[in-house]
Amino acid sequence: MFLYAAATVKACLDATRKLGGENYVLWGGREGYETLLNTDLKREREQAGRFLTMVVDYAKQSGFKGTILIEPKPQEPTKHQYDWDVATVYAFLKDFGLEKEVKVNIEQGHAILAGHSFEHEIATAAALGIFGSIDMNRNDYQSGWDTDQFPNNVPETALAYYEILRAGGFTTGGTNFDAKIRRQSIDPEDLVLAHAGAMDVCAAGLKAAARMLEDGKLETARAERYAGWDKAGDILRSDLATLAARVEAEGIEPRPRSGRQERLENLVNRYL
Amino acid sequence: MFLYAAATVKACLDATRKLGGENYVLWGGREGYETLLNTDLKREREQAGRFLTMVVDYAKQSGFKGTILIEPKPQEPTKHQYDWDVATVYAFLKDFGLEKEVKVNIEQGHAILAGHSFEHEIATAAALGIFGSIDMNRNDYQSGWDTDQFPNNVPETALAYYEILRAGGFTTGGTNFDAKIRRQSIDPEDLVLAHAGAMDVCAAGLKAAARMLEDGKLETARAERYAGWDKAGDILRSDLATLAARVEAEGIEPRPRSGRQERLENLVNRYL
Amino acid sequence: MFLYAAATVKACLDATRKLGGENYVLWGGREGYETLLNTDLKREREQAGRFLTMVVDYAKQSGFKGTILIEPKPQEPTKHQYDWDVATVYAFLKDFGLEKEVKVNIEQGHAILAGHSFEHEIATAAALGIFGSIDMNRNDYQSGWDTDQFPNNVPETALAYYEILRAGGFTTGGTNFDAKIRRQSIDPEDLVLAHAGAMDVCAAGLKAAARMLEDGKLETARAERYAGWDKAGDILRSDLATLAARVEAEGIEPRPRSGRQERLENLVNRYL
Amino acid sequence: MFLYAAATVKACLDATRKLGGENYVLWGGREGYETLLNTDLKREREQAGRFLTMVVDYAKQSGFKGTILIEPKPQEPTKHQYDWDVATVYAFLKDFGLEKEVKVNIEQGHAILAGHSFEHEIATAAALGIFGSIDMNRNDYQSGWDTDQFPNNVPETALAYYEILRAGGFTTGGTNFDAKIRRQSIDPEDLVLAHAGAMDVCAAGLKAAARMLEDGKLETARAERYAGWDKAGDILRSDLATLAARVEAEGIEPRPRSGRQERLENLVNRYL
Repeated sequence: MFLYAAATVKACLDATRKLGGENYVLWGGREGYETLLNTDLKREREQAGRFLTMVVDYAKQSGFKGTILIEPKPQEPTKHQYDWDVATVYAFLKDFGLEKEVKVNIEQGHAILAGHSFEHEIATAAALGIFGSIDMNRNDYQSGWDTDQFPNNVPETALAYYEILRAGGFTTGGTNFDAKIRRQSIDPEDLVLAHAGAMDVCAAGLKAAARMLEDGKLETARAERYAGWDKAGDILRSDLATLAARVEAEGIEPRPRSGRQERLENLVNRYL
Repeated sequence: MFLYAAATVKACLDATRKLGGENYVLWGGREGYETLLNTDLKREREQAGRFLTMVVDYAKQSGFKGTILIEPKPQEPTKHQYDWDVATVYAFLKDFGLEKEVKVNIEQGHAILAGHSFEHEIATAAALGIFGSIDMNRNDYQSGWDTDQFPNNVPETALAYYEILRAGGFTTGGTNFDAKIRRQSIDPEDLVLAHAGAMDVCAAGLKAAARMLEDGKLETARAERYAGWDKAGDILRSDLATLAARVEAEGIEPRPRSGRQERLENLVNRYL
Repeated sequence: MFLYAAATVKACLDATRKLGGENYVLWGGREGYETLLNTDLKREREQAGRFLTMVVDYAKQSGFKGTILIEPKPQEPTKHQYDWDVATVYAFLKDFGLEKEVKVNIEQGHAILAGHSFEHEIATAAALGIFGSIDMNRNDYQSGWDTDQFPNNVPETALAYYEILRAGGFTTGGTNFDAKIRRQSIDPEDLVLAHAGAMDVCAAGLKAAARMLEDGKLETARAERYAGWDKAGDILRSDLATLAARVEAEGIEPRPRSGRQERLENLVNRYL
Repeated sequence: MFLYAAATVKACLDATRKLGGENYVLWGGREGYETLLNTDLKREREQAGRFLTMVVDYAKQSGFKGTILIEPKPQEPTKHQYDWDVATVYAFLKDFGLEKEVKVNIEQGHAILAGHSFEHEIATAAALGIFGSIDMNRNDYQSGWDTDQFPNNVPETALAYYEILRAGGFTTGGTNFDAKIRRQSIDPEDLVLAHAGAMDVCAAGLKAAARMLEDGKLETARAERYAGWDKAGDILRSDLATLAARVEAEGIEPRPRSGRQERLENLVNRYL
């Protein structure tokens, strides 16, 4: 099975290179387990790590200049996926020294299934240096399977693009619709309308996100919140005993400061 | 305990009447069970039905002219609430002949906890003739407890108001914020900003809903979908054998028609 | 479509009668909606009520002596099902005067998807007088779709059978496995082993439930909890003002009594 | 705030050392965020990493010989926790070179809230070399908040202990009840009975797990499933092109083999 998978991925990588593909996503939907009773987690993980290393090595040797990506997915149809979410994929990459070689393609629907917001997954990937691209298809928050619907909520889309723009925007990839129209949408025009409407939603979200970033108020508020830290490098270079001594010596009794969540949420709504 | 509850509700009802209150909500948050092992569901239900009948009777006798409402809630802190959702409350009212006497106060957050969309609960209550009022505070879709946050998503708010306007609007009650600011929002101004922002969101949602209804495109599409039924009363007055015979005689082989979900979702986005 | 459905159900009912079938389940899996935007809830509900009335009428006329059942299901593949759970089905039956004519076939997996425990749904149906039969196939609590697995947890199965036995046991129907083996279980013997193991689990659960009921400790505890009510009929026949006056006159200040949940859970474990 | 936290942890560590404590758990319940809008994920993560490094350094310097542990928790009361699950904690430890220094204390209830089974989290920690200790208190699968109930289901407990025993058992820590009795359990004896019943459940689960492991059938089945890999080291040392060439040369067409899940689940039930 390992050999067959190797041959398959090699063939696909070769085709991608010949067609001038810029990205190669190892789509995540089947690499998990149904029951721990028949599974050796550690062995599976090591073999998967070795496999991915082979893929990365071959991509380089074969002259593929694009990006290799993993798409996190927590479950369905398997009970549990090895690529649960961005942090899990990062742990895996780090263990096999691949965190500079492989990025993530994050899908809104998979993020939701993992219990995270889409923007959390994007922000996490950006913080860890593995953000690659996105699948914009969404899940219904109240349906516990992969509904793969087209996006239709501009405020949510804006928050996702905001995290992307804050992190410097796409360096590869972009906005993909790995979506399907609803089971009852059986007219040809439904397919066209779904794509057109979703593109409009993404465009509106992206433009709102750009306005948020350009206007700077959100980032100013964030910078203010962390301002104390800009001149506090000595604290981070210190040690527990020294810091504890300072608390006693200086009688430090910190007061909480408001997180101002509602103010920030109001501010976001002005750009929509 | 029953007596004490009776005395409490009587006192509150009296106060409501004296203060000119127009609505009296039997807020739902504690009438459920933690384990079936110590619970007699049937008995609890009958006693609750008798209690509510007493409340309705007393309200009338005492001259209270307002509306009595139940607020559905599925759980938290109890494992299970008797007032799970609108349909469950309706079944309860119907069993005790109270479906003309008591209405529901629907909270977005409770609807979400029950696994329903807010607009589903509103539409269900309207269809069953028990729609009363709403609590606009929302839950986070990904937090499984009652977060009671202020609303901040206009498209979602618009869909909720749309169902209310379609059903004829409020005849009593209105939009209540049974919300709290986040734990970290500790400045006085956070409380003001939360209310102001939420009112803006509700106003924007309500105005969008009004435009949707006035423009009429959504209702025209809905009417078209059910148009065949407007002249099909004979079908509903018929019987299984007659209808089956018609299928054979006329060689009826129905073809599905598109539900046009994406088209309608696109249409909604034009009003936002 | 209505005619075609009528013809289909008539044909199936006829076949059931000819084959000596004792139950006819209107399996629930497609009668819901994907979006409220194209749906008239009230109309759908009334037409469904009329349809079910026709089915019940035809069943009687045609000489079918068995039970007609509805199987509640909350969602999947639809976003929302009209037969969400037992209470919702009861409300529907009651509105069309069918609560004496139609019972429910409760599936563990559907109960879970609706946010209820299996035993809650059984106890609710028993309390409402519409308990019919069960599908014993379970969902994974952590997979939000209909996994239809064979049962394998004896304590859970015992609690379900306990509610059935308490309510008097089956009068029709019984334990059905509407289950499938896992996608990776591809040997013929997997199918046999799944059924054999599940039957063992059900047998062990049923026997434990019978021991619990025969021993009587659980029911004694429950009776003690409600003992006060056995002689408190006058309270239920009274009214709010009278009860409130008694509270003042007698200075009633009720003290909570322990629900003893852990003690009861320990007791259950002794029978397993 | 950082200084104050440093002083607090230092004081607690000192007390733990003086009292002969063998474990020090940095309990996870507040280190997350409510909204990304006011949060710098990357900075928070780096500061948390620096903090934990200081803790580990001080523990060593101060002569603490025990184990430092982190307790993963996904949410509640915060919207999102930095220590979501075992894999997330591992990624964090790895980034700061602490994966040999810090272990995890896994709570059943937190595992459930994160969307994982308890045994998944244990097996993952064992595979990653960071398994430390457990909190046996469970959540209700259908309540989306931290219910912290005492364990009462032996089969589930057995599967958790089985993963622990397979991994070599506890080297530190053990079974902790970070549980509370239900809100309605207000008698002193409820507290005693809850602990006694839970200890019985753990004992029964542990003994069943020991029998499963001693009998060896489960591990034999697992070993058989991976037997091919014991002599396939050359495959893992190879590369994509070589393996692909072998597929073509040898005409490899792998056939799936049954995962035998139901058989294994039946087998587990024999030990309970």
